Amino acid sequence: MPKWMATSSASFEPPIIGCVVSERNHTFGILKATKQCVINIPTLELAAQVVGCGNTSGRKLDKFKAFGLTQTAAARVKAPLIDECFASLECKLVDAKLVAKYCFFIVEVVQAWIDRSRKDPRTLHHRGRGAFMVAGETIKLPSKMK
Amino acid sequence: MPKWMATSSASFEPPIIGCVVSERNHTFGILKATKQCVINIPTLELAAQVVGCGNTSGRKLDKFKAFGLTQTAAARVKAPLIDECFASLECKLVDAKLVAKYCFFIVEVVQAWIDRSRKDPRTLHHRGRGAFMVAGETIKLPSKMK
Repeated sequence: MPKWMATSSASFEPPIIGCVVSERNHTFGILKATKQCVINIPTLELAAQVVGCGNTSGRKLDKFKAFGLTQTAAARVKAPLIDECFASLECKLVDAKLVAKYCFFIVEVVQAWIDRSRKDPRTLHHRGRGAFMVAGETIKLPSKMK
Repeated sequence: MPKWMATSSASFEPPIIGCVVSERNHTFGILKATKQCVINIPTLELAAQVVGCGNTSGRKLDKFKAFGLTQTAAARVKAPLIDECFASLECKLVDAKLVAKYCFFIVEVVQAWIDRSRKDPRTLHHRGRGAFMVAGETIKLPSKMK
């Protein structure tokens, strides 16, 4: 898993995501050069692997092998999906204007994969220094919001 | 509460946040004109008010009055804090380069307020169309990550 410091959905149509990737990370150079990536979304079951991946570098280690993760081919980009993840988003870089100043990449999701059998996936949300908030229940309120 | 479509922490030092605000929202014009805002972070107890605020416009309605929320003065910006919220971030606009194309505002947090007595606040995470994931427990793993 690339060490994404943060991601946010920036628009729905087209589906645009903004990601900050530290220039110290191996991912930074690969993303700049290939203009493609896959964002894989792990759940609680993968917490140990998430921390393992975050504490090592792809420059020196084959993380798939080291952490027992399975590569599968993506449909529209060359980077692989992580099969164990709940969801994977194939992305292409669409705007690099803020990369130099903020390490901020704007990507468009060109293909999305999700395990539909899991209604309330226990996704992980980094609170810093190895602490992760685990997703709890989902509530539904009447709303006009998209 | 302004209807933030998404926020993400983009860097730690200085603390920078990226926010997409729809140009249809009253917040969009205010943020562009004043170059300041407060990001208030609500928890489960405020879910009904969050949806109420998201389904109405500050152009036509005094949301503080309509939803029983309390204004308190901020220290470094003119926009008010919402007293009932778990945390409030006073922000100043530092980069508007991507506003025209993506409605994306880059702000710096100049003052932060948090209710430290609440260790695991049940924050709300919009999944779309009135569905909110509620924050569950926080787990801690040994890690070198910031």
